Parts: sequence; structure tokens; C-alpha cells
Amino acid sequence: MVELYLYNTLSGKKELFEPAKAPNAGMYVCGPTVYGEPHLGHARSAITFDLLFRYLRFSGYKVRYVRNITDVGHLENDADDGRDKIAEKARLEQLEPMEIALLYADKYRYATDRLNVLRPSIEPLASGHILEQIELTEKILDSGYAYVSDGSVYFDVVKYAETHDYGKLSGRILDDLRCNSRELEGGADKRSPFDFALWKKAAPEHIMRWNSPWSDGFPGWHLECSAMSKKYLGDGFDIHGGGMDLLFPHHECEMAQNAAAGAPSARYWVHNNMITVDGRKMGKSLGNFITLDQLFEGSHPSVAQAYSPMTLRFFILQAHYRSTLDFSNDALKAAEKGLNRLLRAYDALNSLKPSRSSSFDVAELERKCFEAMNDDLNSPVAISVLFDGARAVNSACEGRESLSAKDIEGLKKLYSSLLFDILGLKAGLKTEEQGSSSELTEGLVNLILTLRRNAKAGGDFAASDRIREELKQLGIVVKDTKDGASWEYGLKTDSAD
Amino acid sequence: MVELYLYNTLSGKKELFEPAKAPNAGMYVCGPTVYGEPHLGHARSAITFDLLFRYLRFSGYKVRYVRNITDVGHLENDADDGRDKIAEKARLEQLEPMEIALLYADKYRYATDRLNVLRPSIEPLASGHILEQIELTEKILDSGYAYVSDGSVYFDVVKYAETHDYGKLSGRILDDLRCNSRELEGGADKRSPFDFALWKKAAPEHIMRWNSPWSDGFPGWHLECSAMSKKYLGDGFDIHGGGMDLLFPHHECEMAQNAAAGAPSARYWVHNNMITVDGRKMGKSLGNFITLDQLFEGSHPSVAQAYSPMTLRFFILQAHYRSTLDFSNDALKAAEKGLNRLLRAYDALNSLKPSRSSSFDVAELERKCFEAMNDDLNSPVAISVLFDGARAVNSACEGRESLSAKDIEGLKKLYSSLLFDILGLKAGLKTEEQGSSSELTEGLVNLILTLRRNAKAGGDFAASDRIREELKQLGIVVKDTKDGASWEYGLKTDSAD
Repeated sequence: MVELYLYNTLSGKKELFEPAKAPNAGMYVCGPTVYGEPHLGHARSAITFDLLFRYLRFSGYKVRYVRNITDVGHLENDADDGRDKIAEKARLEQLEPMEIALLYADKYRYATDRLNVLRPSIEPLASGHILEQIELTEKILDSGYAYVSDGSVYFDVVKYAETHDYGKLSGRILDDLRCNSRELEGGADKRSPFDFALWKKAAPEHIMRWNSPWSDGFPGWHLECSAMSKKYLGDGFDIHGGGMDLLFPHHECEMAQNAAAGAPSARYWVHNNMITVDGRKMGKSLGNFITLDQLFEGSHPSVAQAYSPMTLRFFILQAHYRSTLDFSNDALKAAEKGLNRLLRAYDALNSLKPSRSSSFDVAELERKCFEAMNDDLNSPVAISVLFDGARAVNSACEGRESLSAKDIEGLKKLYSSLLFDILGLKAGLKTEEQGSSSELTEGLVNLILTLRRNAKAGGDFAASDRIREELKQLGIVVKDTKDGASWEYGLKTDSAD
Repeated sequence: MVELYLYNTLSGKKELFEPAKAPNAGMYVCGPTVYGEPHLGHARSAITFDLLFRYLRFSGYKVRYVRNITDVGHLENDADDGRDKIAEKARLEQLEPMEIALLYADKYRYATDRLNVLRPSIEPLASGHILEQIELTEKILDSGYAYVSDGSVYFDVVKYAETHDYGKLSGRILDDLRCNSRELEGGADKRSPFDFALWKKAAPEHIMRWNSPWSDGFPGWHLECSAMSKKYLGDGFDIHGGGMDLLFPHHECEMAQNAAAGAPSARYWVHNNMITVDGRKMGKSLGNFITLDQLFEGSHPSVAQAYSPMTLRFFILQAHYRSTLDFSNDALKAAEKGLNRLLRAYDALNSLKPSRSSSFDVAELERKCFEAMNDDLNSPVAISVLFDGARAVNSACEGRESLSAKDIEGLKKLYSSLLFDILGLKAGLKTEEQGSSSELTEGLVNLILTLRRNAKAGGDFAASDRIREELKQLGIVVKDTKDGASWEYGLKTDSAD
């Protein structure tokens, strides 16, 4: 098995990934809260863990990948004021909360499909696991680390911290939190402002509610991930992932819940960093909140054009998942260009004439690619190595480097594995929207090129040039070579380099 | 509001549809059991209720459409032997049942998307509503119509039938059932072979199980629809739909459960009939079981070619939903031709030169269409009326009928409403696979037609004909008119009539 080192937030260092039951590997990732349009932040998290999922599978692991959907009980802040975002929006729009939840869950599914993010193995809903959450709450109550107060159940953080290392994941120290506690409003029914709800009694107007031993109410947000990861992956499973913003309090609380219920937590905690927009935090109030639809349609003021899902995917993979990533039109434009360059090089391999020997070390290129991937999924380094290869291929096309038949095959296989299987980019220069119509496109373009060849053969070079120009307007670039004309689609005329 | 008459299985006649809280309308439909590939039967049910959903929406109703996903507790037969199909398959494949469930739920979603079936408003999972099912079981126990036996809970059909009309939906008479009861094996723990499980104790090897007041187990199949329809639509909601095969025992048991819990059932019960294949019941063991993928790819021995999702949709809508529908390659072929004929007539309206008056009664055509739709969604009659209109449009194109500008507009609107909004067919002769690449196709074809025009202008009629023939090979039919050449894509060359 491959030697993959993953940065484990729990230990603060890169560790060799060793699943408890190889070749099986279990991974739980915090998925979307479905009360709004899928946006750039969703894309980064989905793509980060898709990369990990794909790389583990590529490496031979049988992965069970659980990514939940939060459709209930996402409390707005640590103060646990019991306002449920979904229910709030549902009341606003006078819809049943589950109508909103399905609408946005579907949008998330469609958007991630377009980004070529593989579907998880299991996609559990928080609202679908109330029983499991009630049972876990009972367990924590039994262990003495929670208390009932006015129909709600709270986790007793102060008591827990006396015997456990609360903060061991996030590094937050309870004493430090205490010093800043003036900001925190303790609910009247909580013993301490640090305590968080396991079960919340629903206010009369609250429309999402279930019966429980304590009240008609709903589970606290942190609870669902403990309950669902345990159900589908068991205790002490391999990898727990999520966005850096979930580290505290969400993941810290998950760990506390698990420990209080007597169960070990995941062994590797992996967090992806955030996306900023033009250097600033993305936020609805800042006007720089970009939804995926806006990006794919080019309808947001921050972008000068529509960008394909593959361009966004490549852009995200060009940064390491633990770095912040700044989104800007220029950066997307550059990613579009870069992706086209790699895909062109891959295509060029098919028509490259082999030499007797190679002037270029393909094995070394491959070694560097996997070395990068094994180094905490360093996709930007792997991509830069692929760019080195692309330069070599281009040089070989121009006769300035030579590649043997075996090395050409090796490069094809390497690029196919890396670009398509691992990085999850889509094949060819054609965008995925074309799908099955590419055959028609090919037929039409070939017919046009035949007509152009006839015009040339008849001495009508003006017509030939006109056809070339018309095709260019349609995004099709014709290359005349000594073997005839070839063409490529999907290149913006200004990005061919 | 439109006067829609629906055949109500409960009364055995067509009744004026009057929702309890117009303009809101509630509809619950039994969705798929997700342990196998989506097949023709799934398509018929999904399209039938999509037609109803679309027609209600078109008529101004605000519809909440709930379609469940059965991912647990579907007992194999009335004998309630406790074998859960999904769990069985999961054990076979050594997968977690929810992995199977998501895989096939996704396949069902993708297939219905391709069939242009609108997403329901809510898509509840049986496994996500265990708490609600336990509560309903408790209610029925409280009312005395159920009993606990060895950790399982059974509905007491015999006792219920003493005071209630068991059989009022399906027309099955308990006494008749009794006469045939030798075939039914009563479980050792059941009082009567007619009794059905509300909660079933799980055998030790059963992998889908939840805690309950009676045992670690799982809900009986009939229970989920009672619990989920009540939750999202309330008691006595408007429409309950499903396949005819669900009438007994499933829907009869649902009604009994509701009544035993003191709640009225839905007021309109709508059932779609089955699909047969070449005159025989479809079945895996008969070798005539056709999945949607096989149909769309043309990979099943029963079909001579691939058929588009729209051809299947049109084929299904050309039969009344309460008739059996026999699937055969010839019938599909005919549907493909018929759909193209209608879509061509719709396209022809755009280039039709208006006359001063009409020789054809468009208002009458419209009246007949909606009369058919209001008569229990008689889509085959509505479609035959559209064919009448298509003939008139074709005659008008040839100058044998005349249509005023106002009537042309009226026809366009009528065809657009009927074909696209209500019948849910997709616009244009182009198939949906083309999507956003149709602009490219258009650009390429137009370039080719320009080159062809130039060839003609230069006297090279052979070249012009060759181009026409080449385009035909690609599925593009060029029509030369006095206003220049027009073209259509997606017509099989043998189906142009």
C-alpha cells in the first residue's frame, strides 16, 4: 500500500496513514447545511475530500465515505439560542422545512456532480437520525457529563474538562475561553456559557420538533456527527474531515461527546482551509459571496466571464488544501489557461512520434508526482510536476526533446491517472456540457475541414482562411500540420499559448 | 380553478377534485424501493404522477408533492417473514445497507431527471422516520387494534374488521380472503394470517435495526407511508397515489393503520396500471425485465435500438394511466415517430405565414385538449387532438389550410403548454443530451450551409448534394425552401414522414 502522510490536526503533524482495518478505510466528512445556495466554500470542501477519497481508492483502499447533510438543528452560535436557520427560512418562505432542505440538498448534489465530485458512499440526514441522537444523549446523561434543564439537555463542559482534555483537537484552553467569557451569553438554563446543547426544547413556534424523553424538541448541532459517524463507521474510525471553521466548537464538541459516551473518536482529523475573495473573507453582507451558479454562469460582478466547473476544480487543486486560497477573476483566468495547457499536452501525446530513446526522465517525473501526493496530498506540487512534463512534451513535439514509445505510453498513463482519476478533472478539452453530442460536433467539424481541404486543393486559399476564422469564432482552433489539419475545441482564442 | 375529474379508487368513480385547502393541494405517492436498477415500472409511476403534479401546478394549485423512498422494512410478502430485501442484498454484497440504498436512490434520481420528471417537494426516507413510526405504532396499540407478540407488534386485522370496513379501498373481502387462507402461512407469533407487522423484532443476523419499546427491530413496510404522509401533509390530505400493485395489501393496510390511529386517510386514491412487455408481465426470471439504462442505451435484446428518455415518456403518456400498457420495440418506434411529428409541427408554426382568416378552429382544439386532461388526465386523447392540430399545421404549410396570425400564436401557446409544461416533454427536436452545446452545433451547421450555398451559387450542385447527404448521415435534415435552407436535428432518417 502507498505511504500516504496526512496532516493530523489532532497531533499537529503529518502522520503515516494506517487504517485500522486495511484495505478498508472509513472517512466521515461534515457536509453542507442545506439552507442556501451552494457556494465557493462548499466547492473547496467537497473537492478537498473528493481528492482524498479518490487518492485512497486509487491507492487500493476500499473506502466507505460518509458525508452528512445537516437539515436540522444547526444552532446559529455557541450561545445556543435555539434558533434553527432552516426553520427560520422555512417560516419566512412559508414552506415546510423539508421542502427547503430537499431543494438545497438537490442543488448541492447537482453542483458537486458538475464539479466531478464523486458521490459519497452514504449521505445521512441529521433529521433521519433523531433516534440515534436521543440514544447518544441518554448515554452521555448516564455517564454524568450532561444535565437536563427545563426540557433541554446540556453537555457539562466544565465537569468534562476536569477529567478530560477539552481542547485537545482545537488547542483552545478552557481557562482562556473563560477569560473571554464576558462575550458569551449563558442561556438561563445553562450552568456555564461553555456548555452546549445535546437536546433543545422547542419553542412553541418552532416547527421542526420530535418527541424525546425530555421535551418536544430537536437535537443540538454537534450531536448528529457523533451519532452518524458512529452508526456507519463504528467507534475510533479512520478519518474525520471538514472545513477549518468547524474545528471549534463543532469538532471539539464531537470529540467530547464521544469520550463522554465512552467511545474513541476518529484517529486522523483533516481540515481544509477557507476561500477568500479578492483577499477578503467571503460573506453575504460583504457582497463578495459567490455561488457556484453565479460562477458557472459568469453572473457575479467579481467575475468577468463564466468559468467551467473544471476550471474551478483545477483552481482549487492548484492550492494545497491547508492553505487559504484567494479567489479572483485573474486567478480563475490563469487556472483556465493552465488546465488547457495540461490537457493539450495530454492530447499531444497521442500524435507524438516516438524516438529511439528519451532525453527526458519519465520515471523521475512519476516519482515526483506521487511523492507530492503522498506528502499530505500536495496537489499544487503534483500539478507543477505535470507542467514540467507538459513542457517536455511540447518540446518533443517541436523536436527539441525526444521520447521513446515506452516513455510516451508511460506519460499517457501517468497523466491519465493523475489528471482524471486522482485530481478528478474531466477528459478532453471539451467541456462536460457537451456530453454525448461531441460525436455530432466531431462529424460537423470534420465535414467543414473536408470542405476547407477541397477549397485549398482548388486553390481557393481565401475560402480556406475564412473557414478557419469562422471556426475560431466558434471556439475551434484548427492546426495545420504536415499530416493534415487537426482541431481543438474549448480554447478561448486569447488563452492559447 | 380548472374542473379536474379524477378516478378515485375509493369510490370507484371519477370525482371532481376539490382540495381541502385550495389553492394548496397535498399529494403523497409511494416511491421506489431502492434495492435495484430503475426499470420501466418505475418510469410509468414516476411519469403518471409527474403528469398529475404538473397539471395541478399548471392549473394554479400550490402542490406539496411527497414521494417517499423505501430503504428499509419492505417485507417480501404478506406472510411477513421479516426478510428485508435491502438487508439481504447488502449481506450478499457485504456492504452496509445504506450504501446500496444511496446507490440506487441516486440511480432513480438520475433516471427520473432524464425523463424530465420534476423533483418532488419532499423525498422522505423510511429509515429517516423510525421515531414517527414507533409513535404511530404506540397509538395503534393504545387504540387496541394491535398486539405485541414476542417483541414484534402486529396489526389485528380481524378485530379491526369487526368495526371497520377492511377492504373498502381494494374491494377485498376478509371472508373471501379467509376462504383462501390455506395458502397463507401465519407466523407462529401472529394471531391470524391476515395480521401484518407494524414492528418486527430483528433476527440476530439482521443488520438493519433500531431500538424500540418492544425489541431491537425494524418497522413493517405498510407503516412508513402512514407515518410520513401524516407528518408532511397532515390527516385527511388530498391525493394518495401509487401503482395498482400497491392497492392490496399496502394501501388497504395504510388506511387501516390511519383509522386505527383515529385519523382519516387521503380523500382521493389514484393508481396507475402496469407495464407489460410483449404482452407478458415483466419479471427478472422471465428475461423481459428492462431497466431504463438498457432502454436508453439500446442494450436489451427486446429493443432494436436506443430510445431517448423523451420517447419513453411520450410512449407512456400515449396510454391512459389506468390502462395496462404493452411495451414492444415497434410501439417505441411508433412513439418516437409520433413525438417527432408533433415537435416538427410545433417548430413549423414559427415559420408559417399567417393568412387573413383561419380555416381551422383553434379554440375548439384547445377546448378538446383540456377537456381530455380534465377527464381523469386523459393524455392519449389530448395527444390525439394535438395530432389533429399537427395535420392542420402541415396542411397550412402546404397552403391547403389557412391560419390567422392570432390563431398561429394561439396554437404556439397551446402546444407549448401541453407538450412542455403539462406533458413534460422537452423542447425542440434536439435531445436533452446536447444541452448548452446546441449553440455550437447551430454555428457549425450554419457555416456548412453557407459553404453549401456558395457551392450552389458557383454552380457546383454535386457538392451541394454531397453536403446535404453528409449532414443527413449526421442526423441533420436540410430543407430547401424559397426562403433558403432550414435544418432539423434528431430525426432518424427513416422516421421522417
